[in-house]
Amino acid sequence: TDISHEYALKAMLAAKEKAEKLDVLVNIAVVDAGANLKAFIRMDDSFLGSIDVAIKKAKTSRYFDINTGDLGRLTQPGGIIYNIELSNDGLMTFPGGVPIKNKEGKIIGAIGVSGGTIDQDHEIATVGSNAIIE
Amino acid sequence: TDISHEYALKAMLAAKEKAEKLDVLVNIAVVDAGANLKAFIRMDDSFLGSIDVAIKKAKTSRYFDINTGDLGRLTQPGGIIYNIELSNDGLMTFPGGVPIKNKEGKIIGAIGVSGGTIDQDHEIATVGSNAIIE
Amino acid sequence: TDISHEYALKAMLAAKEKAEKLDVLVNIAVVDAGANLKAFIRMDDSFLGSIDVAIKKAKTSRYFDINTGDLGRLTQPGGIIYNIELSNDGLMTFPGGVPIKNKEGKIIGAIGVSGGTIDQDHEIATVGSNAIIE
Amino acid sequence: TDISHEYALKAMLAAKEKAEKLDVLVNIAVVDAGANLKAFIRMDDSFLGSIDVAIKKAKTSRYFDINTGDLGRLTQPGGIIYNIELSNDGLMTFPGGVPIKNKEGKIIGAIGVSGGTIDQDHEIATVGSNAIIE
Repeated sequence: TDISHEYALKAMLAAKEKAEKLDVLVNIAVVDAGANLKAFIRMDDSFLGSIDVAIKKAKTSRYFDINTGDLGRLTQPGGIIYNIELSNDGLMTFPGGVPIKNKEGKIIGAIGVSGGTIDQDHEIATVGSNAIIE
Repeated sequence: TDISHEYALKAMLAAKEKAEKLDVLVNIAVVDAGANLKAFIRMDDSFLGSIDVAIKKAKTSRYFDINTGDLGRLTQPGGIIYNIELSNDGLMTFPGGVPIKNKEGKIIGAIGVSGGTIDQDHEIATVGSNAIIE
Repeated sequence: TDISHEYALKAMLAAKEKAEKLDVLVNIAVVDAGANLKAFIRMDDSFLGSIDVAIKKAKTSRYFDINTGDLGRLTQPGGIIYNIELSNDGLMTFPGGVPIKNKEGKIIGAIGVSGGTIDQDHEIATVGSNAIIE
Repeated sequence: TDISHEYALKAMLAAKEKAEKLDVLVNIAVVDAGANLKAFIRMDDSFLGSIDVAIKKAKTSRYFDINTGDLGRLTQPGGIIYNIELSNDGLMTFPGGVPIKNKEGKIIGAIGVSGGTIDQDHEIATVGSNAIIE
């Protein structure tokens, strides 16, 4: 079970709509079950640096099947997996990456959002992820 | 003048529709005037290796404001820019990358397609590019 | 449908047995349907440089669902996808990478072999791939 | 003195058996005395991100002939080798990487495990390492 491109578009556009409502400029990436890029959009005037951050957030979320912000709690100095960010060509371990599940609860991909505050990024990613199970 | 995300989506979805008509599975990337990724879609069951090829075709096209296939004529052994592919983290110099112009003829981005034959990829990319000026 | 680790081990060990019969020292890599490393063995005294070559052959084969040697016929100077090797962090487009199919004919991974002649590498990889459908 | 591929397989399969007993899904990598990949297995449904982490744990352990968890005590902020993780294309300095010694006590390679808790990863790696000296 892998996210289809139609569902990837749906999650991405739901997230984009939420970002517009919040008046936040973001980059949105969706990866499939293999952590490969499936869909992407960069909103006008969003940060250039957020292209890579959004993609890495989505990949990180799928690499470890976790919200990126939850992973970040374990990677701080003194944390049990300190500096794991240096693996896999660079992980992003702050909020904004969220797994995407199907209606049966199986993880089929992930979404990463970057450009707003970490709370906004997480909220927007969550809306994108939820669009698949509604 | 830079392609907007709405136009990037429009070009990408026009290309996708063309690919579906041709019954070809492709990856489609759109970059902006700065050659940064603006929109992307990976059709289900398309080649895994085509994600990177599509993105690199789009970037190559904008890097030098040229159809990638035209660039490839100059990069062969004995050609005037032999092995320029080794620059910019890897160029793709066979057909499938096409500049995107606005109605005034100014280049505002580029589109790259990978997954079909090089003729199909070029045709699909051209449909995407033309969707902006129609 | 993805290759299991038991099947990946089976393919790898069948290839290793063939290499021993041929008295060739090789590296053998198996990737899954997502082109991610699934199993690997480096025979004693095989070339150090073949570790990466074997892995890249397996990935290349799955990236484009093709024997790597067949891909190489298209990437030569004047070929239709000249220098595509510069994509995906480096493709290997000479013989030794072979897709792995299940009994229904669906591609579930790939195997890459490096260390012998290209004919030996291809033969050994083929034995590994065939071990899954026998 | 370098670990043979037969011993690398033996260590890897002993670790895999232990992981199955603990009901943990892990990636297991063995490197030789030269810190080059010698054997690898990715258990079905284990984390995608753990492929690279397991390999980096094994390499880190052999790079400095130390359990990776012990190294991590020295790399924290204020530690004597703070951020050494940035060398060697990325070190992993939390538990799960263990040197492999021969019966004379000489280090001949290392094993890295990723996918469970850090305690499980270390325990599984230790079982793999011990399989060579028993």
